[in-house]
Amino acid sequence: MPTTTWNRHHVLSLADFTTAEYDTVLQTAASFQEVLSRRTKKVPTLQGQVVANLFFESSTRTRSSFEIAAKRLSADTLNFAAATSSMTKGETILDTAKTYLAMGTDIMVIRHREAGVPNAIAAEMDRLGVRVSVLNAGDGQHEHPSQALLDLFTICTLIDPANPRLELLKGKKIAIVGDILHSRVARSNIWSLIASGAQVHLAAPPTLLPKLFAEYFSEDTGDRSQESLVISPSSSPASPASPAPSSPSPQLFLHWQLEPALQDADFVMTLRLQKERMTAHLLPSLREYHQLFGITRAKLQLCKPNVKVLHPGPVNRGVEISSDLMDDPEFSLIQSQVTSGVAVRMALLYLLGSGKA
Amino acid sequence: MPTTTWNRHHVLSLADFTTAEYDTVLQTAASFQEVLSRRTKKVPTLQGQVVANLFFESSTRTRSSFEIAAKRLSADTLNFAAATSSMTKGETILDTAKTYLAMGTDIMVIRHREAGVPNAIAAEMDRLGVRVSVLNAGDGQHEHPSQALLDLFTICTLIDPANPRLELLKGKKIAIVGDILHSRVARSNIWSLIASGAQVHLAAPPTLLPKLFAEYFSEDTGDRSQESLVISPSSSPASPASPAPSSPSPQLFLHWQLEPALQDADFVMTLRLQKERMTAHLLPSLREYHQLFGITRAKLQLCKPNVKVLHPGPVNRGVEISSDLMDDPEFSLIQSQVTSGVAVRMALLYLLGSGKA
Amino acid sequence: MPTTTWNRHHVLSLADFTTAEYDTVLQTAASFQEVLSRRTKKVPTLQGQVVANLFFESSTRTRSSFEIAAKRLSADTLNFAAATSSMTKGETILDTAKTYLAMGTDIMVIRHREAGVPNAIAAEMDRLGVRVSVLNAGDGQHEHPSQALLDLFTICTLIDPANPRLELLKGKKIAIVGDILHSRVARSNIWSLIASGAQVHLAAPPTLLPKLFAEYFSEDTGDRSQESLVISPSSSPASPASPAPSSPSPQLFLHWQLEPALQDADFVMTLRLQKERMTAHLLPSLREYHQLFGITRAKLQLCKPNVKVLHPGPVNRGVEISSDLMDDPEFSLIQSQVTSGVAVRMALLYLLGSGKA
Repeated sequence: MPTTTWNRHHVLSLADFTTAEYDTVLQTAASFQEVLSRRTKKVPTLQGQVVANLFFESSTRTRSSFEIAAKRLSADTLNFAAATSSMTKGETILDTAKTYLAMGTDIMVIRHREAGVPNAIAAEMDRLGVRVSVLNAGDGQHEHPSQALLDLFTICTLIDPANPRLELLKGKKIAIVGDILHSRVARSNIWSLIASGAQVHLAAPPTLLPKLFAEYFSEDTGDRSQESLVISPSSSPASPASPAPSSPSPQLFLHWQLEPALQDADFVMTLRLQKERMTAHLLPSLREYHQLFGITRAKLQLCKPNVKVLHPGPVNRGVEISSDLMDDPEFSLIQSQVTSGVAVRMALLYLLGSGKA
Repeated sequence: MPTTTWNRHHVLSLADFTTAEYDTVLQTAASFQEVLSRRTKKVPTLQGQVVANLFFESSTRTRSSFEIAAKRLSADTLNFAAATSSMTKGETILDTAKTYLAMGTDIMVIRHREAGVPNAIAAEMDRLGVRVSVLNAGDGQHEHPSQALLDLFTICTLIDPANPRLELLKGKKIAIVGDILHSRVARSNIWSLIASGAQVHLAAPPTLLPKLFAEYFSEDTGDRSQESLVISPSSSPASPASPAPSSPSPQLFLHWQLEPALQDADFVMTLRLQKERMTAHLLPSLREYHQLFGITRAKLQLCKPNVKVLHPGPVNRGVEISSDLMDDPEFSLIQSQVTSGVAVRMALLYLLGSGKA
Repeated sequence: MPTTTWNRHHVLSLADFTTAEYDTVLQTAASFQEVLSRRTKKVPTLQGQVVANLFFESSTRTRSSFEIAAKRLSADTLNFAAATSSMTKGETILDTAKTYLAMGTDIMVIRHREAGVPNAIAAEMDRLGVRVSVLNAGDGQHEHPSQALLDLFTICTLIDPANPRLELLKGKKIAIVGDILHSRVARSNIWSLIASGAQVHLAAPPTLLPKLFAEYFSEDTGDRSQESLVISPSSSPASPASPAPSSPSPQLFLHWQLEPALQDADFVMTLRLQKERMTAHLLPSLREYHQLFGITRAKLQLCKPNVKVLHPGPVNRGVEISSDLMDDPEFSLIQSQVTSGVAVRMALLYLLGSGKA
């Protein structure tokens, strides 16, 4: 493992991650990626520690990824499924968390459909002065930091496998396409990409990308009468040492058409479209959505020649992305993302847990 | 581990527990409490053994506690959830248990909504002459021995952390408040508290504490015309060596008001109120229940100054106990109970399993 | 472990199993049966490997058996329950499998209610050129190879515990009774029994055993006008070295009454009757089914004196088999089957996994 000065006790959001923290996660994940290629893929790092997966919102994929990561580190795992939980017995979420604390949990991996639940639990743990760590595995439409970190790791290891680091993305054009308004994945990714110095271009139908969305990331939300919005982000905490220019270069761009976002893009991040958006009359039809914002081989012609496509999964084939493109290893990073997920989650559990052991 | 002469093969009920058995559990749990405070919280005691959690009635809390306890002892665990069980395929419960036996289960932890199921399974295992142990994790309105033992451990370690033992409770006044009629926790606690020589005062509305309830614990059920019932318990198996007095001092008291139970109490055990009791017209409203039998800071004034409050969880805040009181470490033992639960369940699994290994 | 030349990468069906493969499974399972009788029942064989139980159709019994088997081999296990799966989010089954592949799964144990799903997943894994193995844990009405292998192991170890092998069944008469049409267990068993040289007699009501059923196993389906059908199977792949006779002796017999199947039988395999068959008007009533095809002590008089009865479980007592007979160790092998199941599944996981480690 790389020597590091990691002081973070919880991972709840990427909004305040520093460059040093991003790089520590990337380098630690790279070490574990190497472990995963060995014959014996386990390390004894977290032996005797308990990682509790408290998934108030069910997710087989993310839960399995955290479970494998924890087991690779030799931790004991506990799974809590919302369906059979004591929540149905009227207990508050904080009381459930405190129960797992009292049972000896060292790290709580929390998913909840309401934004802010992991933060509230972490605040309560800090108030109690206990050493348990909270890892946000997705909260409402707020953040999904481990997903954004694995996306970052996937891209950075593609550029420089030996030494993945945040600065590799400086100046890259990255398109994020789809249901941005409702996506915690997009929010976490926007924080990390802005911190890296990348140019982040969002593309979605207006119902899924209101102009006000930009205010979440910047006070300077530009001229709202345009077809695209160019936004200069607030000075990011990721480069606290650099002198904050009075007017930083724009990094966040909003588009209500796909083409300007794809033009010369290095990477295209697609987002999962919830079918419920249709019934809520935010979209006319899946077919029309695919025509306008679905990623296909033809539309990728607009991008850089080596463009790569990401998706957090599970994919609705033929909606967010065409089926043949998804299976084409020349363009698709989707399988790499899943593999990176285990390495990045091992890194996060290790960084949070090794202070305790 | 303390040297001990533990001969019990199943833990189904506390009705016939001896003082020596209570003390063995308390001392073994104290050893494991010490293990749990170490850097590496695991011991290899039950390596290669299989602990099957057969929860025909779902319970995240108790199941997680047993699962952590088993993993701390290095056992392999199997979880059986009622919802996806073969029970829905028409198999009998005994056949399900025999299937887990044939798969190589060493200890079966069983919860079922019908009283007597763990006993029936244990009887069948004994009839078959096999070495598998059965641990009752709550059966209907019958018993929940591991909960009562963890309550006992919580109280005894508070009084003498270095040497928890049953006799520490002799002469203490302990109030049990709430839905006693339907509570397996109350029944198991009454057995252990009577065995300890404590004065046990039950308090509940008449619909949740019928006079006939006392007959479960004693043949001498006193004068039934009073507002409170004073009962001399049948001679307890907990002190088989002591000469049984022709008329033992009363130890069990029934009250249909809260105040006489709280008066000078050393400990107050509150019980969970199932919301279903309202719909069954056993109670007028949650609000009225809280007014009459909910534990608050004000009502605790009646008790001894150092009084402590217990609850088996999950708590309905503001019903059985006021929210601020629950969070006050000066009065509340609720978090300690959860922590004690892991140590006590490790002790029970160890005592049942170490004979086999 | 016996030295062996095992080259099979997936276990999907027994239709093409060779005698050498059957014998390798039987002998490997015998070694593990011995491990299971030791004080410490674990071996480190699959340490660091991940066995994912992907049960798209729920099954506590089979999943638990595979989970114990994997843990005895020190593998890490992942459980995927259909109810909380991302399947409900519109992902395809192949994409789910590829996600578990990308997470680092070494062996996928797959159950699905549609025939062919494990084969499709295995084909996709082979197409991708990856080393993951697929084990069919039951697919629709197609096959359930691990169940048939454990039935085979149960019978062979009864005949020669020291050296279980396929040829022990040569010439034995084995009756398979019940809902053959809908049974994947029956299909897998017929393949292994024909390969062994046993005489296989199927007995069921005509609605559950159509004459056309025989065509699945043989081109020569005999004279269809009889009350029983005598079928010469196609030359089996299990004895590729032996010269294929122009007209092999008949091995598969279809009966629409119970008696001719039981007459002088050495073993009786009963099949689970799904209650849904009644509502589909395939059977008049459970009572009538039991009268005509249920196995009782009286009906066993027709068989050889040492006849044994098997059932894959869970049993509907008093339907497929009388309750007293099921519990009689003189006749019932049902508990042995469950125990054999763990040894056989350890053998399969070992044979599939040890090439990778």
